[in-house]
Amino acid sequence: MHHIDVRIEKDVYAANDRLAAANAAHLKEHGVRGFDLLGAIGSGKTALIERLVPLLAARGLAAGAIAGDVYGDDDFRRLVALGIPAVNANTGTECHLDAHLVEHAIDDLPLDRIDLLFIENVGNMVCPTDFALGAEKRIVVVSSTEGDDVVNKHPMMFRGSSIGVINKIDLAPLVGCNLDRMEADMRRYNPEIRVFRTNMKTGEGVAALLDAVLE
Amino acid sequence: MHHIDVRIEKDVYAANDRLAAANAAHLKEHGVRGFDLLGAIGSGKTALIERLVPLLAARGLAAGAIAGDVYGDDDFRRLVALGIPAVNANTGTECHLDAHLVEHAIDDLPLDRIDLLFIENVGNMVCPTDFALGAEKRIVVVSSTEGDDVVNKHPMMFRGSSIGVINKIDLAPLVGCNLDRMEADMRRYNPEIRVFRTNMKTGEGVAALLDAVLE
Repeated sequence: MHHIDVRIEKDVYAANDRLAAANAAHLKEHGVRGFDLLGAIGSGKTALIERLVPLLAARGLAAGAIAGDVYGDDDFRRLVALGIPAVNANTGTECHLDAHLVEHAIDDLPLDRIDLLFIENVGNMVCPTDFALGAEKRIVVVSSTEGDDVVNKHPMMFRGSSIGVINKIDLAPLVGCNLDRMEADMRRYNPEIRVFRTNMKTGEGVAALLDAVLE
Repeated sequence: MHHIDVRIEKDVYAANDRLAAANAAHLKEHGVRGFDLLGAIGSGKTALIERLVPLLAARGLAAGAIAGDVYGDDDFRRLVALGIPAVNANTGTECHLDAHLVEHAIDDLPLDRIDLLFIENVGNMVCPTDFALGAEKRIVVVSSTEGDDVVNKHPMMFRGSSIGVINKIDLAPLVGCNLDRMEADMRRYNPEIRVFRTNMKTGEGVAALLDAVLE
């Protein structure tokens, strides 16, 4: 039983990796740069897209987005309100997007009219880590209200990401969150990670973050 | 491939359900009432245990706890500091506890010295729903800072829980969270659910919640 289980798990990951590579090639062919947005529910992933889109427009760059959620269209409607091409990807019961879902979502996007694609994963700090989607960078967003032990509890999420965002810095004193611990934990798990502190309500920190995204 | 996959999935759930029933019987034999605590990272599950333990002690009831996390002992250390028997259950890479992990954790607890057992799951709004652990009630904790769409995004979590806790109500105005929407969504997905609004920082709402837990 256990052996069969492990073999299937390996097959699933290998199949996903092949599809992710195909997605990456497909995006590249159309000159679109893809970015995964990861993080817990309410960390600020959609809010980050809302902040980045106007900054990108000011640089002459057009974005599209995929909204990944188990259920509902709350995030999708916020993306549509931004006036960008967006696709709602509901996973039903799954705790993460996979490359196959993203392949279908990409098919519904006008790739020749966008320069960047934000792929917002299901709000979850565990499941998405094993599933490549075809993006060039992973950006993980955590917030002070999740507690300053959130990074330590989820090493894999940070090992696989090139940018770490610490959001809701204005609320840190109210929830007794030590932002320095969060940042130190990120660097301990991934010495290469670029860390930014943001407040999506005001836009603080987002311009510097955008430079790192586009680098 | 798909057929094998589904068969194994069913076997995994059936095996887990059998172990969960055995856990429930084991706890009952020792006169211990078990409660699952579910919710996202940072929602306030550990804080709820911290608030409940002294209230229980005042009623002559002793609690024990299992701290479920992917990695680390942040929550476990908080439980130990409460002076209650506690076990740290790290899942490694899994996004949820299962009945087998809980069975081993229970073996490490002095069941004859406790009246209640809190089983704090991994911070995750998706994965834990399918895995019974052997508790008599599921309590799901969400917080205002997760956004007022958090309930709508996770129907299954609320359908399977008998108590819904909305925490960090003091921060709702600061993050633009509509608490009434959260409560209405809970009742829409589960008309039987008991809903409580709390502030774990002050203890507001916790005494009423405890009455419902013990009912």
